[in-house]
Amino acid sequence: MHAVDLIQKKRDGQRLSRAELEFLIQGYVEGRIPDYQMAAWAMAVYFQGMEPEEITDLTLIMAHSGDTLDLSSIHGVKVDKHSTGGVGDTTTLIVAPLVASCGIPVAKMSGRGLGHTGGTVDKLESIPGFRVDLQPQEFISQVNRLGLSLVGQTGQLAPADKLLYALRDVTATVESIPLIASSIMSKKIAAGADGFVLDVKVGQGAFMKTEADAVQLAATMVQIGTLAGRVTVALVTDMNQPLGTRIGNALEVKEAILTLKGDGSPRLRELCVQLSVEMLLLAGKTQDRHEAERLVEERLKNGDGLEKFRQLIEAQGGEGRVIEDLTLLPQANYSQDIPAPKGGFIQAIDPLTIGICAMELGAGREQKDAPIDLAVGLELQTQLGDSVQKGASLAKLYANDPQAMERAAALAKEAFTIGAEKPVVPPTIYRKILAEDV
Amino acid sequence: MHAVDLIQKKRDGQRLSRAELEFLIQGYVEGRIPDYQMAAWAMAVYFQGMEPEEITDLTLIMAHSGDTLDLSSIHGVKVDKHSTGGVGDTTTLIVAPLVASCGIPVAKMSGRGLGHTGGTVDKLESIPGFRVDLQPQEFISQVNRLGLSLVGQTGQLAPADKLLYALRDVTATVESIPLIASSIMSKKIAAGADGFVLDVKVGQGAFMKTEADAVQLAATMVQIGTLAGRVTVALVTDMNQPLGTRIGNALEVKEAILTLKGDGSPRLRELCVQLSVEMLLLAGKTQDRHEAERLVEERLKNGDGLEKFRQLIEAQGGEGRVIEDLTLLPQANYSQDIPAPKGGFIQAIDPLTIGICAMELGAGREQKDAPIDLAVGLELQTQLGDSVQKGASLAKLYANDPQAMERAAALAKEAFTIGAEKPVVPPTIYRKILAEDV
Repeated sequence: MHAVDLIQKKRDGQRLSRAELEFLIQGYVEGRIPDYQMAAWAMAVYFQGMEPEEITDLTLIMAHSGDTLDLSSIHGVKVDKHSTGGVGDTTTLIVAPLVASCGIPVAKMSGRGLGHTGGTVDKLESIPGFRVDLQPQEFISQVNRLGLSLVGQTGQLAPADKLLYALRDVTATVESIPLIASSIMSKKIAAGADGFVLDVKVGQGAFMKTEADAVQLAATMVQIGTLAGRVTVALVTDMNQPLGTRIGNALEVKEAILTLKGDGSPRLRELCVQLSVEMLLLAGKTQDRHEAERLVEERLKNGDGLEKFRQLIEAQGGEGRVIEDLTLLPQANYSQDIPAPKGGFIQAIDPLTIGICAMELGAGREQKDAPIDLAVGLELQTQLGDSVQKGASLAKLYANDPQAMERAAALAKEAFTIGAEKPVVPPTIYRKILAEDV
Repeated sequence: MHAVDLIQKKRDGQRLSRAELEFLIQGYVEGRIPDYQMAAWAMAVYFQGMEPEEITDLTLIMAHSGDTLDLSSIHGVKVDKHSTGGVGDTTTLIVAPLVASCGIPVAKMSGRGLGHTGGTVDKLESIPGFRVDLQPQEFISQVNRLGLSLVGQTGQLAPADKLLYALRDVTATVESIPLIASSIMSKKIAAGADGFVLDVKVGQGAFMKTEADAVQLAATMVQIGTLAGRVTVALVTDMNQPLGTRIGNALEVKEAILTLKGDGSPRLRELCVQLSVEMLLLAGKTQDRHEAERLVEERLKNGDGLEKFRQLIEAQGGEGRVIEDLTLLPQANYSQDIPAPKGGFIQAIDPLTIGICAMELGAGREQKDAPIDLAVGLELQTQLGDSVQKGASLAKLYANDPQAMERAAALAKEAFTIGAEKPVVPPTIYRKILAEDV
């Protein structure tokens, strides 16, 4: 087998077999196949696409290119959730305890934030004492004991994906749906769950800008999951405005706690309930969607979800009293309101600009491993479609650095569009994509 | 400027500016831009193509990436000829002296053979004593004195093309018309001529398999030449059978001499006359095609072309008496006829198989710099469309190695198709493509 023949095959629109993909991917990881051949192959994939079985083969080869988590000693069906990344998206901190409080084990590995999107692991670290670096055995026994653990990535999951992603990043081959889908799913599959609920964001603040692209990505991932023998479902959800009202690490923990208390942003709450429902259905808790919804709503209202979150925090060494006393979370030294420059309807809140604004304040990182400030960020004081008076606060910014505050305030102003006409507010959830749809 | 942005621009179907291409190509030659980014760019070009001005920019940047020949001290318009490579194509050895005998200076650098196509430099070296490695000054002064010199490539012509070609070869990006055209034209332009007559082969034994592709390549090269300020014309010519009847280095010198004596294969003669006519027209010898044809035919018939070839040989240290005594050329130890397995019409003579057969005998090289045997090769005893009796000789093979002879004889048999129906013989020349056509 010669790599150049496989590149040509893909270039000419043919499907590569599993053996051919193994030759390419394993050869690449082992250094036998050079970057330039993988780059040419990736660009050929960009133009020619891949067939569902082919994408699944690629995904599984990448999933098995390094460590894989064995969750078989956890009782029950393990369902994982994954979001393609948005602004103000703190769903994991709400959904995980809610689902666990319904009796479904949640053994979840999360990542750190990069660019304008936040990361669950960073958020959790804003809870004083919280440890995200449990050993695998500790992680599994906590799930068996408590039904829930949230940790950072351990081991070398899908190193082939890591290599390939770094190459795609510098060869303009990131924007390929088969390659995006296989990249996400390879890591998810390596992390060991039996099923996946995928949240594919669409809009200005998302990687997928159009609903058509988001649906295609969602459908491709559902196909991969299904062909790989994992129950999988995807929601295509809105990212034309930030999901929650708080952006920043401690601020998003606060919002998660408020939501579990019944007090969060309605859009965030709505999505959390629907994601939880899908997880319950996949885990086989019930086959009745209404029953699942009733269960989730009950755990929200009776405080079981909140209690499970407290148990999670304490189990992982964190200060459980943050649940009652939000001031125990890191607090910023300065705050500043962004006044509306004129009266009218909020016609747009650009999530990308809001995300960059939070990054400017220190809440996010442009480069991997850069330090971040857990206390800073912003709280939206208005929602899309609200009517505001001139001078009313659009958002409150929290900073520890006055210069960063100045730069962020200028950016925050740009994020809001105010006009005379009431805008049409997009729904939180556009579509659900089930295995039988694809 | 970032390479990844330029790859993306091309991926999205946009034209790169001259400055952008300079950034890429010069950066690549200087090692600042890695192979994997050039590979991704090349694959994007494969799918998106390039605009004429863009291809010309690329060509000129590659042409100026190394040494360039300055032919300005040669009097008159210098016209070069280039063939995309075929089997039994010894036109240079005939056209160059013919055109020079009409008073047009011919200062030509040629290459060595690779794969199933021969190289003029190898053929010339089969003439005892012939030197192909003249110094640039010697080369130029010979052209001013004699009107003609044929040498091997000196200096580092278009090193960017050399690098890029080697990369394309291992990334399945060879078959891109803009990249093929710019590769050829960059070397031609670096070699200093004022105009080019291009011979684009089409058919089973050519790189371009369809007339449409050949026409597109020819038109692209004519466009490049014209936009680069060089008078350029292209002939699209047949390579569905070997052009001449002899294949192999000394054998092709023999065929060239026979043709200059009025005795060669009619198809080879026809193409040589037409290529010479185009060179005369481009050089401004006359504007009348009939007059140009009359001049060329005259030099063929009165022996001026042959005499010029003898002068060339002697000027470059070769044994001029080969003109009269063909046995002074290297002779093979063994010969063998290939008998027709049945009677009928010769319906096909696959030039690729014939070329590989000659390579098997030792006349060609699979790897650059491999040694070759100048004496060996084959002579076709039949032409496409001929009627043959069973047992008649289809071709005579010449070898120095009995085992090679055995392998080659088996191959040679495969090259001929004999059947009951008289085939339609394709024309020698399909089309001429002038600057005003594109």
